[in-house]
Amino acid sequence: MDRVIASIRPLDEGAMQEAIKRQDSLTKPQGSLGQLESLSIQIAGIRRNSLPSIVHKVIFTLAADHGVTQEGVSAYPSEVTAQMVYNFLSGGAAINVLARHVGAKVVVADLGVAASLAPHPGLKSKKVAMGTRSMTKGPAMSREEAIRSIEAGIELVEDERTGGIDILGTGDMGIGNTTASSAITTVMTGRDVALVTGRGTGLSDEQLRTKVTVIKRAIELNRPDASDGIDVLSKVGGFEIGGIAGVILAGAGLGVPVVIDGFISGAAALIAASLCAQVKSYLIASHQSVEKGHRVLLEHLGLRPLFNLDLRLGEGTGAALGISLAEVSLKILTGMATFAEAGVSEQS
Amino acid sequence: MDRVIASIRPLDEGAMQEAIKRQDSLTKPQGSLGQLESLSIQIAGIRRNSLPSIVHKVIFTLAADHGVTQEGVSAYPSEVTAQMVYNFLSGGAAINVLARHVGAKVVVADLGVAASLAPHPGLKSKKVAMGTRSMTKGPAMSREEAIRSIEAGIELVEDERTGGIDILGTGDMGIGNTTASSAITTVMTGRDVALVTGRGTGLSDEQLRTKVTVIKRAIELNRPDASDGIDVLSKVGGFEIGGIAGVILAGAGLGVPVVIDGFISGAAALIAASLCAQVKSYLIASHQSVEKGHRVLLEHLGLRPLFNLDLRLGEGTGAALGISLAEVSLKILTGMATFAEAGVSEQS
Repeated sequence: MDRVIASIRPLDEGAMQEAIKRQDSLTKPQGSLGQLESLSIQIAGIRRNSLPSIVHKVIFTLAADHGVTQEGVSAYPSEVTAQMVYNFLSGGAAINVLARHVGAKVVVADLGVAASLAPHPGLKSKKVAMGTRSMTKGPAMSREEAIRSIEAGIELVEDERTGGIDILGTGDMGIGNTTASSAITTVMTGRDVALVTGRGTGLSDEQLRTKVTVIKRAIELNRPDASDGIDVLSKVGGFEIGGIAGVILAGAGLGVPVVIDGFISGAAALIAASLCAQVKSYLIASHQSVEKGHRVLLEHLGLRPLFNLDLRLGEGTGAALGISLAEVSLKILTGMATFAEAGVSEQS
Repeated sequence: MDRVIASIRPLDEGAMQEAIKRQDSLTKPQGSLGQLESLSIQIAGIRRNSLPSIVHKVIFTLAADHGVTQEGVSAYPSEVTAQMVYNFLSGGAAINVLARHVGAKVVVADLGVAASLAPHPGLKSKKVAMGTRSMTKGPAMSREEAIRSIEAGIELVEDERTGGIDILGTGDMGIGNTTASSAITTVMTGRDVALVTGRGTGLSDEQLRTKVTVIKRAIELNRPDASDGIDVLSKVGGFEIGGIAGVILAGAGLGVPVVIDGFISGAAALIAASLCAQVKSYLIASHQSVEKGHRVLLEHLGLRPLFNLDLRLGEGTGAALGISLAEVSLKILTGMATFAEAGVSEQS
């Protein structure tokens, strides 16, 4: 982990300046493609190339279970985590459909599902434990397990290097993981639990109140140290969240743009950014989720989401759509004619 | 025109109910794909098919000039309209790049460019006149010309029918056309000119004040009748705006989803909706433009844009991205596994 963090560099200013110059020479009013322009410039800086292209797209969808589901914080039973992993592997989930649409590979990994999953050629086994423990009874995991989950995420990215990664997306599956993500967001941003806790997959008003109470109790009991991302992850996090933090760090270390999905990936980004602030410049926030804590954490990270479609599914679904926009932004940068080439008059 | 308007039916409720039932059976929490779900249901109703697919995508990019540019309301000279048409035809503009990305055909049409354009196999000539007259000196066009521009848009769609159209997008090119669109928006929504007038391709504060004054003068002089879309179009509109209104009506008449681009296409949608209110149910608003009048007109039409990327280019660029999301929404509807198929437990 330390080696990866040490390898994360500031973005390449020269490549970004070149990209800005080119955007301003293309046959459109300067700035008229808004976030598509700024996105292309950011990616030029990340890739250290003023005219980058995207061929290999990889979405990392990490799964794990959460002991806190014992407290009645989710509308779905824990068994669904494993069932959905099988659904990912057979190609029937939303992330499979969206990844096929954008031409991305989906890497499915077990970071800590509370079931022994049958081996499958498409499944990466990085199981840290059979789910976390309930954060209401002590830390969700040990400090060693937290580090191991981050290292596992790093390994997943490094395993994919030989196939090529021009851009990566993050995704999650884990019944109970909005509870962990709200807890992380509260601790890392200092905002009130109720302000960052939503209905997850579909809680009633009463269940939502229970969820808020559970998170408050867990934080009082465990007293996570906001200045120490590993401590926060171990006390109120999850294995897939640690894994995603590792994927983010490894992507930044390799100079690859990292498109984060929704609330759970955002919580992982909070952990990653607390370990290495520079990682934030490598992040592309795909969408604004329905989960209310998501807006808070994106603001904290200084990220503006590309779209708001009221998604609240996870899996990397928003990231897939974000990857497609990133690709579009580069096609604009590299594929449009300049004013000079097209013989079009510039602004009077 | 009357024949087309008479052919616009209400959406197919049966197909929409079937699509809702299917969305709710797919392996995701109900509603968790937000606008992607509602979009697929709307398209099922438009296409009168609970499992529609999209193969043929067509973007209609209509160009025309505006006499009002004499009044100093645009940052670019009028000549740019014709220059950009040539750029569209040679494939170097933003719309070409985006249409290639989403696999859409671009139909480029001259509705009233103020120059004799060289014939080109990719250019549809539907010129009504060599640009409009300045709306500050009288009506921008005659009532007959307004009708002819709408009919021309209808013909463009009908010409494409043999090649197949499963979804269509609208786009515009016309120096000065945000002025016409702000004028239309003011008249049709009753909002103050200053509240619906923006900087177009990049006006200074002073130029923006001029633009507002020009629009106010034109409306006082011409007194367009808000209850008569043809009257509004003729007095303060443009030929490409009339053409787009025709494209919208023809799309709805054929039972095809119509993805509208930004402010200019939105103004055309106001005209189309005033001629046939039912047309609104066929519209998909791709994005929220930077032009401030756009939000006002989308609210007036009851449309919620799919994304907000600070675009302000036109040409159909936002529509191209919207077509891609529409396609994604149908792939979700038709391509995901159901809970029963995947053996995933439903909500407890």
